[in-house]
Amino acid sequence: MPERDVILVLTTGGTIDKQYFDAASEYQISDSFVPRLLALARVTQPFVCRELLHKDSLDLTDDDRALIVDAVRTTESARVLITHGTDTMTQTAKALLAIPDKTIVLTGALAPARFNETDAPFNLGMAFAAVQVASPGVYIAMNGTVFKGDRVTKDRAQQRFVGT
Amino acid sequence: MPERDVILVLTTGGTIDKQYFDAASEYQISDSFVPRLLALARVTQPFVCRELLHKDSLDLTDDDRALIVDAVRTTESARVLITHGTDTMTQTAKALLAIPDKTIVLTGALAPARFNETDAPFNLGMAFAAVQVASPGVYIAMNGTVFKGDRVTKDRAQQRFVGT
Amino acid sequence: MPERDVILVLTTGGTIDKQYFDAASEYQISDSFVPRLLALARVTQPFVCRELLHKDSLDLTDDDRALIVDAVRTTESARVLITHGTDTMTQTAKALLAIPDKTIVLTGALAPARFNETDAPFNLGMAFAAVQVASPGVYIAMNGTVFKGDRVTKDRAQQRFVGT
Amino acid sequence: MPERDVILVLTTGGTIDKQYFDAASEYQISDSFVPRLLALARVTQPFVCRELLHKDSLDLTDDDRALIVDAVRTTESARVLITHGTDTMTQTAKALLAIPDKTIVLTGALAPARFNETDAPFNLGMAFAAVQVASPGVYIAMNGTVFKGDRVTKDRAQQRFVGT
Repeated sequence: MPERDVILVLTTGGTIDKQYFDAASEYQISDSFVPRLLALARVTQPFVCRELLHKDSLDLTDDDRALIVDAVRTTESARVLITHGTDTMTQTAKALLAIPDKTIVLTGALAPARFNETDAPFNLGMAFAAVQVASPGVYIAMNGTVFKGDRVTKDRAQQRFVGT
Repeated sequence: MPERDVILVLTTGGTIDKQYFDAASEYQISDSFVPRLLALARVTQPFVCRELLHKDSLDLTDDDRALIVDAVRTTESARVLITHGTDTMTQTAKALLAIPDKTIVLTGALAPARFNETDAPFNLGMAFAAVQVASPGVYIAMNGTVFKGDRVTKDRAQQRFVGT
Repeated sequence: MPERDVILVLTTGGTIDKQYFDAASEYQISDSFVPRLLALARVTQPFVCRELLHKDSLDLTDDDRALIVDAVRTTESARVLITHGTDTMTQTAKALLAIPDKTIVLTGALAPARFNETDAPFNLGMAFAAVQVASPGVYIAMNGTVFKGDRVTKDRAQQRFVGT
Repeated sequence: MPERDVILVLTTGGTIDKQYFDAASEYQISDSFVPRLLALARVTQPFVCRELLHKDSLDLTDDDRALIVDAVRTTESARVLITHGTDTMTQTAKALLAIPDKTIVLTGALAPARFNETDAPFNLGMAFAAVQVASPGVYIAMNGTVFKGDRVTKDRAQQRFVGT
């Protein structure tokens, strides 16, 4: 398979990867749970997964965002899925808009993937399908919707993404 | 929202909805778990869910398949997601190929949705995204792949779907 | 620690260990999930786990039951926990009544341990505590109750154990 | 059933009941998950559950601890199970030692009950059995062990309870 058809999965942290550490009596972002979710889903479609960052998206710096944009720009793959904290996901989406000829889908979760009740596997499934099917551009897959990356905002009070 | 933009979710049974009944010491298909999965995913995209059948797909008759085709043909919705047993999913996909102007996505699961380790929420997420994004036609979303409905088969020995 | 204080965990099959195999479209008893449950529980109490049988308890023969009784009788351990199918759990309990000077606790589950919604870890926890605390004798730990082994029956219609 | 035989379950908070709130991007103690765990366990043994406090055990004040001791002292029930944060569980156990003629078992969890991978249901099962079987006194049920309440400490570095 040509490298451009292999899906690149970049994980950057966020709620989806929050783990609970009793020692500190607090959550922290741990090793990504995304490879585990893809294994449970019995994915046979070729992909590579790269853990780029382990940060709450409120803590992402300009340098972090530049790192993400650069990773997407320089990959041979034409299909890139990014897991990301929800609070600044739309900001990263905007930073990716300038990249041509690639289908880029961001997703994440409102409840940690390690919870019994979580939106994580569904959201990852949405993103994994959208990155295969959608035409080049930037998208956010959350709340059961594939949004255009420049036409979505997070309503923090309602804890959900809405189109604009 | 015009009715044709509301996603119609039809459930027909299959492994995804298998429950374990101790009284009979066996698995049976129960009330669909699909609405629960959509609630966990915090879907805000408008949809309606209809439990059409509760059958193992090996037990689907010609009449059952005609019922599914008819439900897809007659709905106002242009986007239809069908959960279905995996063993004859490709057969139902073929029966739907004649329907024009609708995006139809079939999915299911290789392990019951009620299991801790299951592909069900991921697959449902894939189908939910594909039904929004893909152009009219019939698709099967399984094993991390959105297959064309007439170019996929289930490899029973390997327990997975493969493109043809 | 003297060997008689090490808890012996014998698994014999039953609903607690039922797995779903799509290839056969049916459940079967698989490798025991009990070691996984004990790992999740972060047990530090010394124990050894031995997978003795992998059977639905309706399929246990007289020879199987003799094998279980013999394993309990011959172990150095004074504390034996047995996971077992629920349908003939009381019958095996009765067969164990003749063994003196040991605390023997049987448990199982009404829903498979691999399900999201299961009584398995709670029941195993009950049995693990009872085998440490109870005086010598035979017990069944199910439905939130530590029953005396000769004073309990399974109400199959109600799907629960009741004292007699 | 005489009231003294009904098990009283007091919940006081702690990791076992930690929920994740995306709005605040942090964990907080929510409504107790303990009633849900008892329902999953299909408990038929009579009990009443009372949510006394919703606190991290590091935040418990002398007044909070007095409230717990008072609730145990004044109940008609002779069997009291307390869910509690792990960091000061042994301190509360010591405060309860003066209460005569009751079997009191404290438990909790090192990972939230809402996690997929948690010790919560196993620990609750241990406590539920111990409170029925053990002679009057104070106990802590954690890490697969029923400890005497005055002979146990939490090793915070190792994240586990050890006998003393």
